[in-house]
Amino acid sequence: MSTTLHRISSQRMFSGNHQRFSHYSQVNQCDMTFAVYHPELATGQHLPVLYWLSGLTCNDENFSTKAGAQRIADELGLVLVMPDTSPRGDDVADDPDGAYDFGLGAGFYVNATQTPYAKNYQMFDYVTKELPAIIEDNFNVTDKKSISGHSMGGHGAIICALKNPGMYQSVSAFAPITNPTQCPWGQKAFTGYLGADTDTWFEWDSCEMIKVLEAGDPFFTLPLKVTQGLADNFLEQQLKPEALTEACQRRGKELDYQGAAGFDHSYFFIATFIEEHLRFHRKYL
Amino acid sequence: MSTTLHRISSQRMFSGNHQRFSHYSQVNQCDMTFAVYHPELATGQHLPVLYWLSGLTCNDENFSTKAGAQRIADELGLVLVMPDTSPRGDDVADDPDGAYDFGLGAGFYVNATQTPYAKNYQMFDYVTKELPAIIEDNFNVTDKKSISGHSMGGHGAIICALKNPGMYQSVSAFAPITNPTQCPWGQKAFTGYLGADTDTWFEWDSCEMIKVLEAGDPFFTLPLKVTQGLADNFLEQQLKPEALTEACQRRGKELDYQGAAGFDHSYFFIATFIEEHLRFHRKYL
Repeated sequence: MSTTLHRISSQRMFSGNHQRFSHYSQVNQCDMTFAVYHPELATGQHLPVLYWLSGLTCNDENFSTKAGAQRIADELGLVLVMPDTSPRGDDVADDPDGAYDFGLGAGFYVNATQTPYAKNYQMFDYVTKELPAIIEDNFNVTDKKSISGHSMGGHGAIICALKNPGMYQSVSAFAPITNPTQCPWGQKAFTGYLGADTDTWFEWDSCEMIKVLEAGDPFFTLPLKVTQGLADNFLEQQLKPEALTEACQRRGKELDYQGAAGFDHSYFFIATFIEEHLRFHRKYL
Repeated sequence: MSTTLHRISSQRMFSGNHQRFSHYSQVNQCDMTFAVYHPELATGQHLPVLYWLSGLTCNDENFSTKAGAQRIADELGLVLVMPDTSPRGDDVADDPDGAYDFGLGAGFYVNATQTPYAKNYQMFDYVTKELPAIIEDNFNVTDKKSISGHSMGGHGAIICALKNPGMYQSVSAFAPITNPTQCPWGQKAFTGYLGADTDTWFEWDSCEMIKVLEAGDPFFTLPLKVTQGLADNFLEQQLKPEALTEACQRRGKELDYQGAAGFDHSYFFIATFIEEHLRFHRKYL
């Protein structure tokens, strides 16, 4: 069944158009909003897609307005797809205290199993199944796709790749929450979305998944790039890049890891390195 | 007397630092905030400055986060200085109805003469005298400067150049309010800041100023570039680019005017053309 898209806005940017759409999501059972940047050179020509997963508190607009990615996508001939970070709406369960790190704006790209979140928080299925189908039905794109993201979304990108062997051509992350079962943000989110039984958490944690990957899993040969600001306030308590580099090293998984001296967790950091990441993905798309 | 600067933040971006400062402004009689992007290559080396004047509703952060200018400034070796668009604070008079187009966030870069605005709204003196002195006292800059801006700030940039012969090396504007005495935004602002006597308005209107420039005025040879989106919602009623092109043409003033098909009034428009503008200024700095 095809999804009806409602166009919220269409704005010229570089040679292309930045557009926002809303639609009813079957998996999240609510209206969702996403943005698409489509280089004009693509008129009639089908282009590969980079999916971008944003971090805590963001919606589709943060990356759209602050990263400067459209300039490079325009040059490289990439379509950018930027979903929201959670289901939205008055009927969608939020954090009981309205905290920034759970509920609205903080879906963590998992499929929730716990009441009341299971009804709407199926963000993993949304970004890996429903949204790609919508994009492929409605835009001039190829089936070649890569995925990247920031913080919660950086980890989300890696999880999407780990759990969908062969789906993406490459994956990258800015300051990902690498080991959510072992940090406060992840523990809070997983308790709420997945429940108190921590055995259910491990399949949503990139480091734990890498530890138990079967030999020959396509992830071993998937190009993977991570950039982490070394002046990031969340580095030690929440992000733990060493957990990911160690997990990769132990399994012989190649990882292009860059620690960037002086950079924090902000979009100034993302804007500085987005060009490197997009050129990295373009090589494989 | 030197001004004490309070550093609000310092964030690494590209090879340099994006910093925000507050200070007590002698001319505006309140605390003001501004941002500076300084390429790191400038350590010890003095660089020229581009001043950026933002539009209605903005503060120093809009251009800082959305335009993508630091990337280019970094490459070109330009310091960017981004002031706020008005005085601020609980004691500063605002629009009686809290409208977006007058008072806070809408100083129009004039020196107000009318009560209660005259006390704090001396934005012209702030951006052309006080702020440049602060920048030259506190940062590794040369005395070479150019100026640019958007909408209210695009006109502000042209006015700053017109009223300070020889001060700037070049001037440019994105979608400037070219002829404020003839449009609703300008008429509202000038009535409030300058009073009902429209004779006092003309020295704050770029088109009117150009009409009466004396032969040999340095403005005639000042490089001037204007870019205007042709899908801009404010084009006909507020911006009137033809008033500026006609005023320049009549006086034989060279103007690099670009009408950009399909672009609106947003920062997506600015982000698309900021590189052209910065490269334009760099030629003269």
